[in-house]
Amino acid sequence: MARQARAIQTRTSILLAAAEVFDERGYSTATITEIIARAGVTKGALYFHFSSKEDLALGVIAAQLELGPLPAQRTKLQELADQGLLFAHQLQYDPLTRASVGLAMDQWSENAEGGNPFHGRPFQEWADRLTELLVEARERGELLPHVDPAETAELLSGAFTGIQWTSQVLCQRRDLTRRVIAMFRHLLPSVAMPQILPTLELSEERAVALLASRDAALEAEEAEADGDSAA
Amino acid sequence: MARQARAIQTRTSILLAAAEVFDERGYSTATITEIIARAGVTKGALYFHFSSKEDLALGVIAAQLELGPLPAQRTKLQELADQGLLFAHQLQYDPLTRASVGLAMDQWSENAEGGNPFHGRPFQEWADRLTELLVEARERGELLPHVDPAETAELLSGAFTGIQWTSQVLCQRRDLTRRVIAMFRHLLPSVAMPQILPTLELSEERAVALLASRDAALEAEEAEADGDSAA
Repeated sequence: MARQARAIQTRTSILLAAAEVFDERGYSTATITEIIARAGVTKGALYFHFSSKEDLALGVIAAQLELGPLPAQRTKLQELADQGLLFAHQLQYDPLTRASVGLAMDQWSENAEGGNPFHGRPFQEWADRLTELLVEARERGELLPHVDPAETAELLSGAFTGIQWTSQVLCQRRDLTRRVIAMFRHLLPSVAMPQILPTLELSEERAVALLASRDAALEAEEAEADGDSAA
Repeated sequence: MARQARAIQTRTSILLAAAEVFDERGYSTATITEIIARAGVTKGALYFHFSSKEDLALGVIAAQLELGPLPAQRTKLQELADQGLLFAHQLQYDPLTRASVGLAMDQWSENAEGGNPFHGRPFQEWADRLTELLVEARERGELLPHVDPAETAELLSGAFTGIQWTSQVLCQRRDLTRRVIAMFRHLLPSVAMPQILPTLELSEERAVALLASRDAALEAEEAEADGDSAA
């Protein structure tokens, strides 16, 4: 493996280890020592990539936000639903996603000792992405005339936050996909033109398939990067 | 003032002071010393009513849950909306409500040091109350036939949790009533029979009026309790 590919792999292992440790311990009690042990790297390797615990947390949040767009669908509203389904499913299985949400919601009280500097940070970003999707949906005539994309995006982002939080507290998010499907079933009739509604697919199976195709796409990207750096 | 009335007043002052301190500092960093100073009571008076910090937190949660039902309306769905409007408005102005939600959401990571034992506690209670209201609404023919009261209650409770959280992080809950009205406007068309929809009142003014009438009712109750114990 070429040096660049190895560096990327080391960085990814560190980020995954950091995500697991942040997810399990919370930001304030997570230690760099434990992240180094979990990643199986040297202290030097970690500090080559990340300067501090704060830098590691920023890396985790950025890696989750970079996961990029899903495949295009017949309607923008299906793409919106797909984002929610995938996010719900990832929160159950992907440490990066879980840690990002954990970092954003950790330390409710801003005055508490060790309060973390990421409180709330990714939420505006998520709401902005949903607004963009809804504006595109409106341009294609998919939305009811009274819908305000920013207001609906804000609602979706806030409601999702609370639904995943409640599901986490009550059952470690085991029922999250079902709860998110219920959210879309309740909200979409107030948002979509009636003829769009029957075309929208919302199911646990779809969430599973979206995650599998996302993973396959990421693996293909990695293989290509490996090939490039070996060439 | 009779001894019993004075004891009730002391207990209430302690609970309000505890609510303020929990709200400002979070559970883990709040101290009984600060609560005693804030309430202006002696250490002996506090320990007469509450045995520990945990006991104080349980008292705050119980006091918030005891706030009781709102005046009956023409429809159960209006009563449901009124609960949400009042709760949104109280979260902006009532330390007991704010502290209850804070205690329930404090310490996202259960493994963090000083994790509090109230994590998530009131949420099942709130969902159960909403389920009861929706079952009554169904019995009166106010709901669309496919609505599952428990599922809709769970969604409302989860969505509300996240909406108030986001509003807290972004602007200290200053826009919360507006966000909760947007939530009901999006959700009620999937829940209510169409002829109910135009009768439902959702406005900031209604939220203000509900809080004023709740406060007047509580003051009348207190005056009666005073009269009883003086008699």
